[in-house]
Amino acid sequence: VRVPRGENANKQWRRMKIKRYKSGDEISYALGMAPLIELINNRPEQLRAVFLSPQAIENENTEKVLELAKELGISAEKNDKVFNILSDKGNCFAIGAFEIPKDKIREGDHIVLVNPSDAGNLGTIMRTAAGFGFLDLAVISPAADAFDPKTVRASMGAVFSLNIEYFSSFGDYRERFKNNKLYSFMLDAKRTLSKTEFTPPFSLIFGNEAHGLPAEFSGFSETVVIPHSAKIDSLNLPIAAGIAMYFVKNN
Amino acid sequence: VRVPRGENANKQWRRMKIKRYKSGDEISYALGMAPLIELINNRPEQLRAVFLSPQAIENENTEKVLELAKELGISAEKNDKVFNILSDKGNCFAIGAFEIPKDKIREGDHIVLVNPSDAGNLGTIMRTAAGFGFLDLAVISPAADAFDPKTVRASMGAVFSLNIEYFSSFGDYRERFKNNKLYSFMLDAKRTLSKTEFTPPFSLIFGNEAHGLPAEFSGFSETVVIPHSAKIDSLNLPIAAGIAMYFVKNN
Repeated sequence: VRVPRGENANKQWRRMKIKRYKSGDEISYALGMAPLIELINNRPEQLRAVFLSPQAIENENTEKVLELAKELGISAEKNDKVFNILSDKGNCFAIGAFEIPKDKIREGDHIVLVNPSDAGNLGTIMRTAAGFGFLDLAVISPAADAFDPKTVRASMGAVFSLNIEYFSSFGDYRERFKNNKLYSFMLDAKRTLSKTEFTPPFSLIFGNEAHGLPAEFSGFSETVVIPHSAKIDSLNLPIAAGIAMYFVKNN
Repeated sequence: VRVPRGENANKQWRRMKIKRYKSGDEISYALGMAPLIELINNRPEQLRAVFLSPQAIENENTEKVLELAKELGISAEKNDKVFNILSDKGNCFAIGAFEIPKDKIREGDHIVLVNPSDAGNLGTIMRTAAGFGFLDLAVISPAADAFDPKTVRASMGAVFSLNIEYFSSFGDYRERFKNNKLYSFMLDAKRTLSKTEFTPPFSLIFGNEAHGLPAEFSGFSETVVIPHSAKIDSLNLPIAAGIAMYFVKNN
């Protein structure tokens, strides 16, 4: 999909055949008013089109969205068909089309997710990270797609507050950030979260939902465990990441 | 749906027309090997039937399940049709039918969820609660169904480790547990989590995903907030509950 831009963008959007997002596409979609407002506020330069459902209630939010889109010179129209194609849920009344940003994460503290597989989990982690001020997120492939509309929605738009960079291996990430102190969250770790001191710049590293982190991570990083009873095999990934982020920011 | 029991149960199960669970049914289903094993280990008296997919790999787990079911005198059979009816996901190879328990929560510390609406969230909270030793869960209706197969699955079977009781109002809950100290998690609370001391027996109270707790809760309980930046409107409900449970158990 080529992204319509510039003076004739509006016309081109009107002619364009809108398709569901597939990984690798240049544009994706923020489904719902809350994610759309986050998109407009945080990434106005990525916004490419705004669609309102004919059923959208004309309230503060829709007016605000139409106004901001107009200021940005962005096409904003009522269009039922787009909703039928892009949205499964009945309660979606606004959609923003955006060009996927190509971020580089900055020096500093990072959240590093190794092979997260679930879009909902990835979105929830992004929402928590934005809430606790972890604004640079490294994702090691293969992994769920941060800009898939499902992830964007689960993040409630927090995806637009973060710098997100994909790396093809943990080694590639490590190569760029040699000075970060690495803390790997693993079940068989030597130290519990409450006994761990986090020295900046640090990387909080979390593994895949089903498999956790490969054992080799204990060879090159500090390992940390959030203790839980034998009644469960592990904490849910976004819960573990959320507890860790809260702890690090409040201790 | 009448639940087949006793000597002729196996025959009756074979003749029974299996239907998808609806709220109010006497029996529900644990979909997947992990939830099924939790069901058998923690609630053997509730187990009514076991179904294995013909595609189930014959490993330790399937053998263990068949053995335990046999000990309990429970029907255990390979049955493809049941999976087509009950399971949406291709990766479900074992199903346990169980009679829904009618628990009463005990005196002591409680998690209280006021009108949680999402089955996945409720299941995730149950998993975290079991992990941190909060074994008595009060749910105020209207609310998602703790024994819906979706909730059971999201809990990874932790639902079978907990006592869960539904109350038709918060007043009904309060009436039974007059001595519990109430801590309500609200965005406009007076005190942050890290400054709050929790005096047992206590109730950690969380509101609905979209609306939080009604303002009136600040009138009859201590209010607590988990501070987060303005980049998000609120933390995700299971994340907030997970952080609170972790904090209370580790401070």
